[in-house]
Amino acid sequence: MPALGYAVTASEQPLERYSFSRRAVGRDDVLIDILYCGICHTDVHAARNDFGNTVFPLMPGHEIVGRVSAIGSAVTRFKVGDAVGVGCMVDSCGTCEFCMSGLEQFCTAGNVQTYGFSRARGTNFLGGYANKIVVKENFVISIPTSLDLARAAPLLCAGITTFSPMQHWSIGEGSKVAIVGLGGLGHIALKLAVSRGADVTVLTTTPAKRDDAMAMGATDVVVWSDADALKPLATRFDSILTTLPYPFDPNLFLGLLKVDGTMINVGLIGSFTQPVNNVLLMLGRRSINSSMIGGIAETQQVINYCAERTIQADIEMIPISQVNEAMNRVVNKEVRYRFVIDMRTLV
Amino acid sequence: MPALGYAVTASEQPLERYSFSRRAVGRDDVLIDILYCGICHTDVHAARNDFGNTVFPLMPGHEIVGRVSAIGSAVTRFKVGDAVGVGCMVDSCGTCEFCMSGLEQFCTAGNVQTYGFSRARGTNFLGGYANKIVVKENFVISIPTSLDLARAAPLLCAGITTFSPMQHWSIGEGSKVAIVGLGGLGHIALKLAVSRGADVTVLTTTPAKRDDAMAMGATDVVVWSDADALKPLATRFDSILTTLPYPFDPNLFLGLLKVDGTMINVGLIGSFTQPVNNVLLMLGRRSINSSMIGGIAETQQVINYCAERTIQADIEMIPISQVNEAMNRVVNKEVRYRFVIDMRTLV
Repeated sequence: MPALGYAVTASEQPLERYSFSRRAVGRDDVLIDILYCGICHTDVHAARNDFGNTVFPLMPGHEIVGRVSAIGSAVTRFKVGDAVGVGCMVDSCGTCEFCMSGLEQFCTAGNVQTYGFSRARGTNFLGGYANKIVVKENFVISIPTSLDLARAAPLLCAGITTFSPMQHWSIGEGSKVAIVGLGGLGHIALKLAVSRGADVTVLTTTPAKRDDAMAMGATDVVVWSDADALKPLATRFDSILTTLPYPFDPNLFLGLLKVDGTMINVGLIGSFTQPVNNVLLMLGRRSINSSMIGGIAETQQVINYCAERTIQADIEMIPISQVNEAMNRVVNKEVRYRFVIDMRTLV
Repeated sequence: MPALGYAVTASEQPLERYSFSRRAVGRDDVLIDILYCGICHTDVHAARNDFGNTVFPLMPGHEIVGRVSAIGSAVTRFKVGDAVGVGCMVDSCGTCEFCMSGLEQFCTAGNVQTYGFSRARGTNFLGGYANKIVVKENFVISIPTSLDLARAAPLLCAGITTFSPMQHWSIGEGSKVAIVGLGGLGHIALKLAVSRGADVTVLTTTPAKRDDAMAMGATDVVVWSDADALKPLATRFDSILTTLPYPFDPNLFLGLLKVDGTMINVGLIGSFTQPVNNVLLMLGRRSINSSMIGGIAETQQVINYCAERTIQADIEMIPISQVNEAMNRVVNKEVRYRFVIDMRTLV
C-alpha cells in the first residue's frame, strides 16, 4: 500500500520526503498509523553512513508509537484503535534457542531490524520516519493508556536498551551506579535506575545538564573533562553504564569500579579509542560488557514498568521538516533529551 | 638471620647468588626451609624490569614449597617438619572488608606481595629464590602428603590464578571452555577445567604442544597463527581463559564466545594490543574480565582439591645455577610446562 516518509536516498544527502510502498497486511500483521517516532543516535549514524554499511534508501526510525488501523485475520492481541509501539526489531526466525527464550535480539538466523538491509531476508527495510508501518503481531508492543504516547516512544529503544542490562546485571536497591552521558539513553537510564532503588551518579561533560540530572533523581552529578576530575570517584561504583554513542577510552572509568564491578557499554557501536589495560580489570576482578536492546517480552516489560511508575522520556517534539536540523543538534548534544517527530506533520 | 638466594641487583643484570637477611621469627611467624620454587612468567617480567617499576635488589619467587624449620610462640597450625607452601602474598591488613572475606588479594591497604617493593610497608620484599623465608602463619599453606612437593609448587600461583576464576565464573560440568596458551598457567588450567567436567579446547600457536594437551584431557586442540584459523570456532565457547603473558588482540577471541560468554584474561599484566570492538560484546552480551590470583583460603582450597585428585604441574626441575637460561626458555615458550628450581642446589 502507498506510504509516505522521510528517507536518505544517497550518501551524504539529507533526509527528504519519500514515497514508497508498505507490504499488504498479512494474516499475522498489524497496520499501524504512526503518530510519533523518536530520533535515536543510531538513526544519525545510519543516515550519515558513519559505519560505511548503509544501504540506500535509508529510512530510520525504531522508536515508533501509533495506533492500529488494520489487523490480519490471525491477529489476536490487538484491535483497531489500540495504542501500540514498535522498537528495533520487526521479525526473527522464531525457532532458534534465542527466539524460543525471549532473546530475539540474538536470533541465530539474524533478527530483522526495523530499518536497514536485512541479510537474513535479502531486503532493505524502511523504518518509522513514516506515516504507517506493517509489522508482525509478535513484534508489536502494547502501550498502556497511562503513558503519554509521544513521551513513550523513546522507551522502545532507549528504554529497553538501558532496562535490559539493569535486569541482567542486577542493578537495583542499593546499587551504586554511575551513568556516563546524559542524552537519550542516559536520561532514561537515570530515571530507570533511580526507580529501581539505585544510588546514581551522573558523569557528564555538559555543565548545563547538572540541574536536570538532579531533578531526575541523581544523587550526584560530576561534570568532567579529563581523567583528573574522575579520580575522586575511584572504586566507588558497583556498575557503570556508559551511554556515549562515540568511541572513548574505557580506562578512564574502570578504576571507578569497586571489586567485582561491571562496566556496561550500551551506546558505543564500534571500537573504544584505547586498548583496555587488563591490570584495571585484574586488580578488582572487574568486567567490561555490553548488551543489545532486549527481547520482545522484555520490551513489553519495560513499557509496563514505566507505565506503572509514569517513567517517560523528556522530549522535544519537532515537525518532520526539522529532522535534518534535529540530527545536527543530536550530534552537538543540544537535545533535551530526545527528539520525537510528530508524524502528523508529514503530509 | 642470614639467608642465601638469587637476585637481580641492578637493571639489565642477570640473577646472581645473593646473601641477605631474613627477619627473626616473630610470634606469628613460620620459618620455612625452601625446597622448591617455580619460575612464573611474572618473575621474568620483574627480573627484566619489563614494566619499568622493578626495585632492586629483586629476588623473585612466589611458588614456594618447603618444610617448617621453626615456628613463633603463637603459631598453632604448623609444626616443625610440616610441608608448606607460600604463594603470591605474605601479608595484608587483615581488617578491611576484603581481608575479612577471604579476598586478601584486594586488600584496601594493599596486600604485601611475596617479592617486590611494598608501598603499604615501604619495604622491598625478597621472594622464594632462596634457601629460607619467614612468613606469617596466616599466609602459609599446608601441602598434603599426597602431592609431590616439587610438582605442587606451581599450584601456589599458576594453580590459584586459574582455579579462582573457574570458581568465580562457574566453569564446571558441561562448560565449553577454550584455554588460550598452554604454558605454566595454561596447562594447569587445562587439568583443572577437565577435572571440573568442562569440555576444553586448547588454542596454541605451538604445534608440538598438541599431543601434550590431548594427554592432559583436552577435547580438542587448535593450532592457530592468525584469525582465519579461529573462525571455525565462532560462538562455540561459554568461557575463554587466556593465559598469554604478553599483549594480544582481544577481538581475535571475542567472536568465539556464545551469547553470555565470558573472556577471562589471567596472564596479561598490561594493555591489550587493540581496542575492544564493543560490537563483539554487544552482539552476544559478552563480557571481558580478569581476576588476580585468589585469597588465602581459596589457595588452600585449590591445593586440597589438587591433592584429592592428584593434579600436579608438569615440570622441568633445574639447579638454581640455570635460572637465567631457564628464563630465556620461558620467554621462548620452550618449557614443558613449568620450571621448578631445586633449592638444594643453592649452596
